[in-house]
Amino acid sequence: MENFAIVIHGGAGTILKDSMSPQLEQQYIAKLNEALKAGYDVLAKGGTSMDAVVASIKVMEDSPLFNAGKGSVFNHEGKNEMDASIMDGKTLNAGAVAGVHTIKNPIVGARAVMEKSPHVMLTGDGADKFAKEQGLQVEDPKYFYDEKRWQQLQQIKKQEKITLDHSSDTTGWVHPKDAEFIHDKKFGTVGCVALDKYGNLAAGTSTGGMTNKKWGRVGDSPIIGAGTYANNKTCAVSCTGHGEYFIRNVVAYDVSAMMEYKGMTLEQATSEVVMKKLKAQGGEGGLIAIDAKGNIAMPFNTAGMYRAYMKKDGKSEVKIYNE
Amino acid sequence: MENFAIVIHGGAGTILKDSMSPQLEQQYIAKLNEALKAGYDVLAKGGTSMDAVVASIKVMEDSPLFNAGKGSVFNHEGKNEMDASIMDGKTLNAGAVAGVHTIKNPIVGARAVMEKSPHVMLTGDGADKFAKEQGLQVEDPKYFYDEKRWQQLQQIKKQEKITLDHSSDTTGWVHPKDAEFIHDKKFGTVGCVALDKYGNLAAGTSTGGMTNKKWGRVGDSPIIGAGTYANNKTCAVSCTGHGEYFIRNVVAYDVSAMMEYKGMTLEQATSEVVMKKLKAQGGEGGLIAIDAKGNIAMPFNTAGMYRAYMKKDGKSEVKIYNE
Repeated sequence: MENFAIVIHGGAGTILKDSMSPQLEQQYIAKLNEALKAGYDVLAKGGTSMDAVVASIKVMEDSPLFNAGKGSVFNHEGKNEMDASIMDGKTLNAGAVAGVHTIKNPIVGARAVMEKSPHVMLTGDGADKFAKEQGLQVEDPKYFYDEKRWQQLQQIKKQEKITLDHSSDTTGWVHPKDAEFIHDKKFGTVGCVALDKYGNLAAGTSTGGMTNKKWGRVGDSPIIGAGTYANNKTCAVSCTGHGEYFIRNVVAYDVSAMMEYKGMTLEQATSEVVMKKLKAQGGEGGLIAIDAKGNIAMPFNTAGMYRAYMKKDGKSEVKIYNE
Repeated sequence: MENFAIVIHGGAGTILKDSMSPQLEQQYIAKLNEALKAGYDVLAKGGTSMDAVVASIKVMEDSPLFNAGKGSVFNHEGKNEMDASIMDGKTLNAGAVAGVHTIKNPIVGARAVMEKSPHVMLTGDGADKFAKEQGLQVEDPKYFYDEKRWQQLQQIKKQEKITLDHSSDTTGWVHPKDAEFIHDKKFGTVGCVALDKYGNLAAGTSTGGMTNKKWGRVGDSPIIGAGTYANNKTCAVSCTGHGEYFIRNVVAYDVSAMMEYKGMTLEQATSEVVMKKLKAQGGEGGLIAIDAKGNIAMPFNTAGMYRAYMKKDGKSEVKIYNE
């Protein structure tokens, strides 16, 4: 036995080879490898899947390449507002933070909620305060500032205006409600699922949300059952995509439920949710999943998804496009 | 055909006949009847299940008897912090607000998020701002002040201190993490599920959270899949109880999943979740549920649950204790 494996994602969306420079592509591949290796090393040394998930996600949160932690996008008010969650498949315990502004690694905040509070989900300034009380590393908002992300916000705000101005034009008209999604088709959430040598599964997800989001909007990433779920009986799942669809479809738990109640394999259940249910509704995105035997799945219905896995024997793949 | 029915709850917990005065009992029964009737009238006149759910819940939110809206408990900072969610079983669309302070009827706020924004979940001050922009009725924090709730907070804060002071006493010692739950075993969340004449299901839930809650804690009430779920294919569910357990078990969607994937009846699925899964974990609470045929279920594993239903033919029951 003693099988183990790790899978990570860095977001799904309109990621096309044509619009990617070879240099940037190499940066993504290098960072995905680094994140993968961080979690793999934990597992190889006999660490837990919970530790591996946190180790991998921290690498991606600390990189400006992904929309999480340091690379988080800006909300409508020009602030970084982050969400994360984690779940332990052995105990079914879970933790989440939503709408936090100062926790350097939101995934560490989510784990602290699970382990150091009686709660599952803490939100807003209260969650930031909890993290500080727990001695977690907090940063000034300046730490999360990224020039590229700032320019994205300015561009989207401009486009939003254009969209509104052209609202009488029926050709290609976009309802203002959808403008922000149409203009930001890359969902750069990061996530990790892992199986450790002891047969325990874990899943984690972290995001900076959507550029230009308003009103304290929260997507699926901090929602247990929607963006993240883990249960040793079935699987561990982390999602990325248009969060509203993932919440309505309770995506992460639905994969587990179809395996437990319908006897589906991981491959069948993940494909059913991502390629059928979500696709039929126009719910763009993807997910990564692993079961207790170490089988993995990485389906997505968008042009691309940053994704990678490494198995016990060292077999590994890092992929970006639909190939 | 043209069957219709409505079910409501006003919270589950340590509700004992011995500790309830006849006067207070009558007040609860009268208010539950009023809430029931408000939703029933909507359905009888050919209104939608969504409208019925909002009508019933508004009556309970406007009463100080229940821990929602006007009767919301105080958090650790002495503020009222409310959560609500709603889901439409026909479209699978949903809306939620979490950690709001000024929306008079959080259930109306949740519905506005669903219908007037591209989002499912809005949180904190942003959600309050959204409600105001939408022209929803907002109130000064004073509106939510209730002397009884305020005294509850003071008492719990005192008990918490006692618990901490006695932390070396192993007899009956309570971990400080659990103190707030041990001392507040009444979960006064309100909820409603309904089936309308058109065969459409809807579910809604609203709460003031837990007395003395800290750090922006959010329970299951605003979480689609955990506290609220509706799907015409299966059922509509609204939960009440120790929210953390309901989140980890994705309770509301689990009922739906067992009906859809295992072919269980509403009775079987709700009993499995509340009386077996939750009970085995120590997860106290209950739920109300209705299926597309108008079958209803109201299981709970606590001493009592404020609950009531009314069917098309006018048959109705209002119950409080375990009987």
